[in-house]
Amino acid sequence: MTTKKIMVGKIPIGAGSPVAIQSMTNTKTRDVEATTAQIEALVEAGCELIRVSVPDDESVEALPALIKSATVPLIADIHFRADLAIKSIEAGVAKIRINPGNIGAREKVAAVVLAAKKAGVPIRIGVNSGSLSKTVRALDVPAAQKLVASALENISLLEELDFDNIVVSVKSSDVMETIEAYRSLAGQVDYPLHLGVTESGTRETGALRSAVGLGALLADGIGDTIRVSLAADPVEEIDVARQILQAVGARRFYPEVIACPTCARCEIDLFPLARELKDRLKSSGKPLKVAVMGCVVNGPGEAADADVGLAAGQGKGVIFRGGQAVKTVPEAEFLSALLAAVDEI
Amino acid sequence: MTTKKIMVGKIPIGAGSPVAIQSMTNTKTRDVEATTAQIEALVEAGCELIRVSVPDDESVEALPALIKSATVPLIADIHFRADLAIKSIEAGVAKIRINPGNIGAREKVAAVVLAAKKAGVPIRIGVNSGSLSKTVRALDVPAAQKLVASALENISLLEELDFDNIVVSVKSSDVMETIEAYRSLAGQVDYPLHLGVTESGTRETGALRSAVGLGALLADGIGDTIRVSLAADPVEEIDVARQILQAVGARRFYPEVIACPTCARCEIDLFPLARELKDRLKSSGKPLKVAVMGCVVNGPGEAADADVGLAAGQGKGVIFRGGQAVKTVPEAEFLSALLAAVDEI
Repeated sequence: MTTKKIMVGKIPIGAGSPVAIQSMTNTKTRDVEATTAQIEALVEAGCELIRVSVPDDESVEALPALIKSATVPLIADIHFRADLAIKSIEAGVAKIRINPGNIGAREKVAAVVLAAKKAGVPIRIGVNSGSLSKTVRALDVPAAQKLVASALENISLLEELDFDNIVVSVKSSDVMETIEAYRSLAGQVDYPLHLGVTESGTRETGALRSAVGLGALLADGIGDTIRVSLAADPVEEIDVARQILQAVGARRFYPEVIACPTCARCEIDLFPLARELKDRLKSSGKPLKVAVMGCVVNGPGEAADADVGLAAGQGKGVIFRGGQAVKTVPEAEFLSALLAAVDEI
Repeated sequence: MTTKKIMVGKIPIGAGSPVAIQSMTNTKTRDVEATTAQIEALVEAGCELIRVSVPDDESVEALPALIKSATVPLIADIHFRADLAIKSIEAGVAKIRINPGNIGAREKVAAVVLAAKKAGVPIRIGVNSGSLSKTVRALDVPAAQKLVASALENISLLEELDFDNIVVSVKSSDVMETIEAYRSLAGQVDYPLHLGVTESGTRETGALRSAVGLGALLADGIGDTIRVSLAADPVEEIDVARQILQAVGARRFYPEVIACPTCARCEIDLFPLARELKDRLKSSGKPLKVAVMGCVVNGPGEAADADVGLAAGQGKGVIFRGGQAVKTVPEAEFLSALLAAVDEI
């Protein structure tokens, strides 16, 4: 299931490269000041590739300034107008995203492909459940297969034009359709896949839906770059994307705080301790695994499996480091003892 | 992959029954008042099975009162002491959860099994990464296979005692280990599986980690009952569990609001509209699919695929119902027109 390597500016996608996190600005692209500010905020949060929508000539005119100030590659998102795609490439974007089906006649697509080829700029074929062609919508196949059919048709079109600098996405607003479509596509092409559940929903629901859809695919090794779509400030997408990648073991950004949900066996006030520890570790920048456990059932085991651990009992607890019990401390010293053990690593 | 059907009181688990949502109280079980209040809050939130920890005799003594007032089946969670398991069964719990490995000698397990058999009470074999036996921990196999080995060993023990009223779990605090362990186990036994990522973390992280782990399994048809473990009020686990089940299409609890993340093409203030609509629909109790979309790229397609939809443009938008565009309304009437369309269904 190894995919081809595609370069988006300095960022590699595919062939086992780290799964790149991307997002999209929702400012008016022609508003250079607002868009630059959002790009900076996204980069600060950890976004590695940023897409901007280019719906008009004023947006194209803003691109050089945006590209100049951005410290990550910018991608132009274009619909309907081939001329905007070509002008965006000429302006220096690192990649374009089109849905060839809505660019129009084959000559128009050919002109875009020629410009991309000349500039060494990859094209993402971005198929979405909401913008399938009438012909594809009318196919008598399951919804997921319509997405795949549309992607394969567009891939063929680009390949016939002797172009293979391609990334593909088949996003549905339905999580299961998304999973099915990507699984099917991954078995048929070796282009890197950009994963996303499209229009996934409001803040919390969108995060959970993306975690289910993207997580299921990433757990099977499918996906080379991801975007979590939230109906919220795009900056919030980055933390969710990181947490999904960390959960599947694809990348590690944060320390991991394993905390038991507590039950009647729990003898200490665990939640504030877990939260405090997580905040402190987050700012320390050490991506360690730390376990804080409230009783002797799973406590010693989890504490021993973590880099640093606490197995608490009544009023006191055992601190573990590197799998070894190192000392017993009273409850008042849990946090300081855990942080001291972290510092020693 | 059809599992055996197990009855937990009136709730069936397995054999294609709706995936039951469960949680666990974190009050002291012996505190009848506090535990009853938490059970009621969990039921109110939609919890269908509730586990209480039974670590001592006082907790056993509280069971009859808890069972009497609870409107859902209660499950006793027991470690170390066979006598507490037997007494809990005699007190009338609908299921017990044990980790046979820590109950002790075979005669003790046999006594528990005999009591369960007599009462027609199922046993969950609850294997956890934090409480594997020393022998299993020492096995030279991947971590996920240690969980599976422990489960299979415990299943054999119960089967040798001629008992098959069994539910099994193999929870790890590592998401990928959890996925791998359940996939492996699902291929080897036909007992219903209780899914969970153990000690999954603080509120938001735990929800995302559970969504990835449980979602990946449920998407493949693995899992008969689920528990989302959060280091938070257990009531918060229920909404997360429901959202995961809804995302994979296993059950439907909420209306689905498909909202685009907006971009430079968006002409309206979409997020407040999406949130308001979601709140109103949630209280209406109609689990419809509603799409609110900010532009003409994916708008008409998503709006037409939903039960009710809005494809907005500059200052006005088209309302869709049952796939058909029904009218064009000005921006000030978006919410009222969408709600009116919902009411007509």
